[in-house]
Amino acid sequence: MKALQDSLQDFLVFMAKELPDKQLVNLYEPVHYIMNLGGKRIRPVLALWACEASGHKAEKALPAALAVEAFHNFSLIHDDIMDEAPLRRGQTTVHEKWDINTGILSGDVLLVCAYQYLETYEGDSFKQMSKTFSETARWVCEGQQMDMDFPQQKKVHLNKYIEMITKKTAVLIAASLKMGALAGGFSAEKSALFYAFGKNIGIAFQLQDDYLDAFGDPKTFGKQVGGDIIENKKTYLYLYALEHLAATEAEHLEKLFSTHPKQTDAKIEQAKALFVASGATEAIQKAKQHYLDKAFEALDELDLTAQHHKRFTDLAHFLIQRQV
Amino acid sequence: MKALQDSLQDFLVFMAKELPDKQLVNLYEPVHYIMNLGGKRIRPVLALWACEASGHKAEKALPAALAVEAFHNFSLIHDDIMDEAPLRRGQTTVHEKWDINTGILSGDVLLVCAYQYLETYEGDSFKQMSKTFSETARWVCEGQQMDMDFPQQKKVHLNKYIEMITKKTAVLIAASLKMGALAGGFSAEKSALFYAFGKNIGIAFQLQDDYLDAFGDPKTFGKQVGGDIIENKKTYLYLYALEHLAATEAEHLEKLFSTHPKQTDAKIEQAKALFVASGATEAIQKAKQHYLDKAFEALDELDLTAQHHKRFTDLAHFLIQRQV
Repeated sequence: MKALQDSLQDFLVFMAKELPDKQLVNLYEPVHYIMNLGGKRIRPVLALWACEASGHKAEKALPAALAVEAFHNFSLIHDDIMDEAPLRRGQTTVHEKWDINTGILSGDVLLVCAYQYLETYEGDSFKQMSKTFSETARWVCEGQQMDMDFPQQKKVHLNKYIEMITKKTAVLIAASLKMGALAGGFSAEKSALFYAFGKNIGIAFQLQDDYLDAFGDPKTFGKQVGGDIIENKKTYLYLYALEHLAATEAEHLEKLFSTHPKQTDAKIEQAKALFVASGATEAIQKAKQHYLDKAFEALDELDLTAQHHKRFTDLAHFLIQRQV
Repeated sequence: MKALQDSLQDFLVFMAKELPDKQLVNLYEPVHYIMNLGGKRIRPVLALWACEASGHKAEKALPAALAVEAFHNFSLIHDDIMDEAPLRRGQTTVHEKWDINTGILSGDVLLVCAYQYLETYEGDSFKQMSKTFSETARWVCEGQQMDMDFPQQKKVHLNKYIEMITKKTAVLIAASLKMGALAGGFSAEKSALFYAFGKNIGIAFQLQDDYLDAFGDPKTFGKQVGGDIIENKKTYLYLYALEHLAATEAEHLEKLFSTHPKQTDAKIEQAKALFVASGATEAIQKAKQHYLDKAFEALDELDLTAQHHKRFTDLAHFLIQRQV
């Protein structure tokens, strides 16, 4: 069983070899740029680990790992255009460094490359992977659309919010594990358990992220604490509070989330107080725990060796139990 | 053997059934919109015909036909954003009717849908189709990039121009035929002949389009005659003339193609005179004939029944020998 650093290294070596050459520089230079911006590479590592848990070498999952990482980066390029984001992983986004057209087209070609990476797999295995991949890609697009729709919607139900984060974030983590498992020759049933593990971890992770965005420690939380409140984002905390506060308080919260004050401290404090008063902070922890339990249930059912079991639980805990 | 109108009808019925439902309206409404804008539906019809030439029912190729049509429309949505085109088939483009973000995301999801349509095919057939599809998609992206690069390039060689139109236009026509042939159970060799027929017809068609853009009859040519000249487009005629004119005339042509006069008649006349003087008009006809010959050679080698052979040649002639 390889150490995390070694799995990562294997992946990066494979990626460097497999990225398209830059002959058509305006198309492929942005592809290299985004793929080399770094990031945690959680998805490819999970694919390699799921494969390795089968007893086969992790190398068998390298093309699948690269496919999910390529897809993830395709979605980042296009999402950054849609969100008008200037920065990604602390660096200039593709459409800012080049232009929107370059972002659109290099994103498109990266999505197609992702499909091509899967072509290493034979017959039925190729089809299963390709199906999982397309289904996931559809959901990711739908999740992004739901996320873009929420600001315009008067009422967003909590279950729609869970559906959005599931599609936008969780299913790609799930698919990474499933595709790695398929590469390792796991049965459809076992692969589905890997998928369930990843999906539920993904939802729990996103809920934790929502919680930390409001209540995290500014010293350890990577982003600006209160960012979602400043941007009036309809997160779990906000939607739960709106559903559970008394009418006047709910109205207050809604009003608060229609303002864009220059000084944001008071707004953040008021919103947080309302979140706490509504019970949203407890509810989100409970919801997070619910999805974590489901994740570990699926993992237990996989009946992996202690070693393999441990590294999945360790990674899950690393992802979820970041400093509050 | 079905008549063209019946093949078209079968396709439209299948398409209406298979397009994603519009539950997520902001994502899927634009997909329905672009897919229902019409167009000649050449690609899906070619897929159905190639399949039918095998002796099997054309229905077997419906998913492949829909995949290529979906891909074509995905590329139209994204290209129209990049070209800032207000109209497509006489109707408002997707990014104009909605917005750029909607165009990007609904294009993305349509590309993924295209891959999903192929999932009807089993095992090896699915893989062959998927490979052909991805390879083609890569080339189409590359062709679009080359086309966007040309205006900034001081010197564009004629062979680069042929490569651009091959990738941007011809390979998707070729892939439509090949995927239809694969759906019908034709061998890899025969499918490659269908591909060759389509590719060469596609190149000949684009050359004819270049020619008609300058020398076509305004009464019968669908677009504005002289449009490429007005826009200073580096077409075959322009690039050939630049390579073959004497230095001073070439310089004159280059200068002409750096102007944007309000009154365009004089510019068009001068450019056309230089095209004729350079021999470009004969050269483009010769080049067109060269690709047509290659196309019909491939078609002959397929050794189809007279009926099937005829409808491919008829369609090719319809595409190519439009009124001058």
